[in-house]
Amino acid sequence: MDLAKIGATEKGGVCRLALTQLDKEARDLIVRWATELGCTVRIDKIGNIVARRPGTNPELSPVMTGSHIDTQPTGGKFDGNYGVLAGLEVLRTLNDHGLRTIAPVEVVVWTSEEGSRFVPVMMGSGVASGAFSLEYALSREDSDQISVEDALKSIGYQGCVEPSYSPKAYFEAHIEQGPVLETAACTVGVVTGALGQRWYNVKVQGQEAHAGPTPMNLRRDALLVAADLVKGVNQIATGSSTNARGTVGCMSVFPNSRNVIPGQVAMTVDLRADSAELLDLLDTQFRKLCSECELPVEVEQVVHFAPQPFDSFLVDSVRRKSADLGYPSMDLLSGAGHDAVYLASVAPTAMIFVPCEGGISHNEIENASPKDLEAGANVLLQMIIEAAAVDDA
Amino acid sequence: MDLAKIGATEKGGVCRLALTQLDKEARDLIVRWATELGCTVRIDKIGNIVARRPGTNPELSPVMTGSHIDTQPTGGKFDGNYGVLAGLEVLRTLNDHGLRTIAPVEVVVWTSEEGSRFVPVMMGSGVASGAFSLEYALSREDSDQISVEDALKSIGYQGCVEPSYSPKAYFEAHIEQGPVLETAACTVGVVTGALGQRWYNVKVQGQEAHAGPTPMNLRRDALLVAADLVKGVNQIATGSSTNARGTVGCMSVFPNSRNVIPGQVAMTVDLRADSAELLDLLDTQFRKLCSECELPVEVEQVVHFAPQPFDSFLVDSVRRKSADLGYPSMDLLSGAGHDAVYLASVAPTAMIFVPCEGGISHNEIENASPKDLEAGANVLLQMIIEAAAVDDA
Repeated sequence: MDLAKIGATEKGGVCRLALTQLDKEARDLIVRWATELGCTVRIDKIGNIVARRPGTNPELSPVMTGSHIDTQPTGGKFDGNYGVLAGLEVLRTLNDHGLRTIAPVEVVVWTSEEGSRFVPVMMGSGVASGAFSLEYALSREDSDQISVEDALKSIGYQGCVEPSYSPKAYFEAHIEQGPVLETAACTVGVVTGALGQRWYNVKVQGQEAHAGPTPMNLRRDALLVAADLVKGVNQIATGSSTNARGTVGCMSVFPNSRNVIPGQVAMTVDLRADSAELLDLLDTQFRKLCSECELPVEVEQVVHFAPQPFDSFLVDSVRRKSADLGYPSMDLLSGAGHDAVYLASVAPTAMIFVPCEGGISHNEIENASPKDLEAGANVLLQMIIEAAAVDDA
Repeated sequence: MDLAKIGATEKGGVCRLALTQLDKEARDLIVRWATELGCTVRIDKIGNIVARRPGTNPELSPVMTGSHIDTQPTGGKFDGNYGVLAGLEVLRTLNDHGLRTIAPVEVVVWTSEEGSRFVPVMMGSGVASGAFSLEYALSREDSDQISVEDALKSIGYQGCVEPSYSPKAYFEAHIEQGPVLETAACTVGVVTGALGQRWYNVKVQGQEAHAGPTPMNLRRDALLVAADLVKGVNQIATGSSTNARGTVGCMSVFPNSRNVIPGQVAMTVDLRADSAELLDLLDTQFRKLCSECELPVEVEQVVHFAPQPFDSFLVDSVRRKSADLGYPSMDLLSGAGHDAVYLASVAPTAMIFVPCEGGISHNEIENASPKDLEAGANVLLQMIIEAAAVDDA
C-alpha cells in the first residue's frame, strides 16, 4: 500500500509508467527497503534492480525471484508489484527466523514490463534472457521520441553491470489477471507454462458509399466483413481447446461517419494457445478465414511468442508446497506474458498465481485479498528455501 | 468548374463548409451570376439566397428550383452545386430564347445542407418548410461554439426577408449519389420519393478483461455482441425489401487495446425504408435484436424522418419529359436526404437525378459526365417551362 501511493490515481489504481519520475521514486523505495533488509543492490545496464541476500556459498548461482513495478496508465496496485514485494517479504521472513541459505537469494525488479511507454514489452527480462540485444532495447523510443537510454539516465537508473543472468532457479509470484482461480475457489494457481501468442494487424478494404442511395446488394461494406472476422476469430478459439484464445481488441472504422458505409476497417487479432501445434492451427484457420472474405483482407503478423512450458520439477514443487500448506490449488496456464516467460529460457522457472477480484486487472479497480497474497508469499518462501537450501551448519 | 475552384482540394474535390469565408466567396459568385442574368436577389433570415426571374403575372407564386453549395469536408464538385447551377442554366436558356414565363422562376441556394459544420442538416430548407424554427436554427453552434447567427453575420449573409416559402412547384436536380443509374445505364432518375430514416446511437456494455488469462467461456466481449448487431442490421434490411437500408457507419471500441477484451462498444445504426410501415417493421426487428443480445444493449433513437413521396403529377411529368427528350430513365427513390424532401411538405415537388461515376459521392473523386449533367438540366428546363407556363402573348 505504501508503494501504491506513488502514482496513485483517484479511482484507487496506480499510473506509474516505466522510467518516469514516479518509477524512480518507486525504485528508490524498493532499494531502501532492500538495503534495510541487509541486501546489496546492483543496477544493470538496462536498469534492472537486483537486491542480493548472500548465501553461505558465494560460488553458487543465486535463486532469483521478482517481477516489475511499472504499471499500465490506468493500472492497479498488484500487477507486478506483488511479485517484487512478496520477494522482499521472503527475505524479511528469512531474516526474522535467522535462516541462512547456501545459495544467495536475489529479488529483482525488471525494467519496463508493461509496454505502455516503450515497446517491446518485458524489456528488462527480454534483455536479461537474450531475447533481444541491450543496444536494441536502449534505442527504443516513447511517443515523445525519448529513448530508453535517455529515460534511464534521466532517472539515474542506468547501471554498469552486464544484464546477463543464469540463476539456479527463478520464481515469480503474480496475480492471475483472469477469473479462473476465483471461479474455482482456489487460493494458488500452479502455472504449468505460458500460452504462445501470435498478434496480427488486419485491414479490410471495402468501398465507402452513401448509406441512403446505395442498395444493400451493391455495397462493399468493410465493417460487415470485419464483423464476420470478429465472430470467426472467436469461433476458431472457442472451438479448438480450452487452452486457446482469440481476441479482437482494437478496431477503427473509416470514415466513421453515421451515414457512410465503412470503406475500410483496421483491427487487431490476438491468438494464443498452449502448444506450438495448436497455435499454428489457429493461425492457419484464421488466415483461411481472411482469404475467404468477400472483400480483400490484409493480414500482417506483428508478434510471435512460442508457448513456454515451465520447469516440470519446480511446477510439481509448487503443487506439493501448496498442498503441504493447506491451500487449495489448481493447475493453469499463464495466458499473459510475464518476465518469468523470458527467464524460463535461461533458468528453471515456476510461477505462483493468486486470485484477483473478478479476474480484473490492467484496471484501477484491480484488487486481491491479503489472505490470498499471504498464501502466495508463503508458497514462494517454501520454494526459495527448497531451492536455495537452508545451511544448517 | 469555376465554382469548384472555391475551396478546391488537391485531390480534385471541394472543402467548403457552410457559412465559412469560402462559402461567402461561392455565394458572392452565385449572386453575381444571377444578377448578370437579370435576376433580383434576396437573402432571408437564415441566409437562403433567392434569385428571381420575374413572370408576366407578378401575383402568381413562383416556380422554384435549387439546391445547396456547402460541401462535406472532403466533398466533391457536384453534390448540391449541380442543382443550383442547373437552375441558373435554365434561366440563361430562357433568356437566350427570349422566353417569358407567366409565373416567376426562382433559383434558390439553401443554407447549410450538409450538416458537416452545423446540425441539423438541411438547415435552410428545414426553416423554410417549418420543420424547425428560425430561432432554433440560428442558435445552433459549431464545434468552436460559433452560432449559425454569428457565422451568418460574419459573412454578411443574414438577410431580413422572412424565410417562408410556398412555391407553385419545387424542382431539384441532383447527382444520384448511388450506383443504380450507372448500373442500369440510365441517364435520368425519376425520383418517386425519399426513404424515411431512423438513426440510433447504440451502446453495448461488456466487461473489459485481459485477452490472455480470460478463457473464452468466461468473457463478456462487447465487440462480439457488436459484431452480431452489425450482421443483424444488415440482414434485417437485406431480408425486408429492395427499398430498405441498414447501415452501421460508426463504431468505437473501449479501451481499444490489442490485448484487452473490449468492455464497451458504441456504434450508430441508420435504418431507411420507403414506407412508414416498413420503417416501423425495421425498427421493431432491430430493437428485438438488441433485446436478445447476451449483453446489455442501450438503444437511443436520435433522428426520425418519415418517408416522403414526391408529387405524383410532377413525378410523372419528369418521366414523360425524359422520354420526350430521348433520355433512358428509371424510377428510383432518394436514399439520402435533400432540401427537396423538406420542400415536399409545403409545395408540389419533384427531383431529377443524374448518374455519378461509380455511385461515389461525399468524396473528393465524385464525378459526373457533362452529357448526363446536360440531360438533367434539359429535363429541368422542360419541367420549369411546363410549371411556369410560357406567356405567348
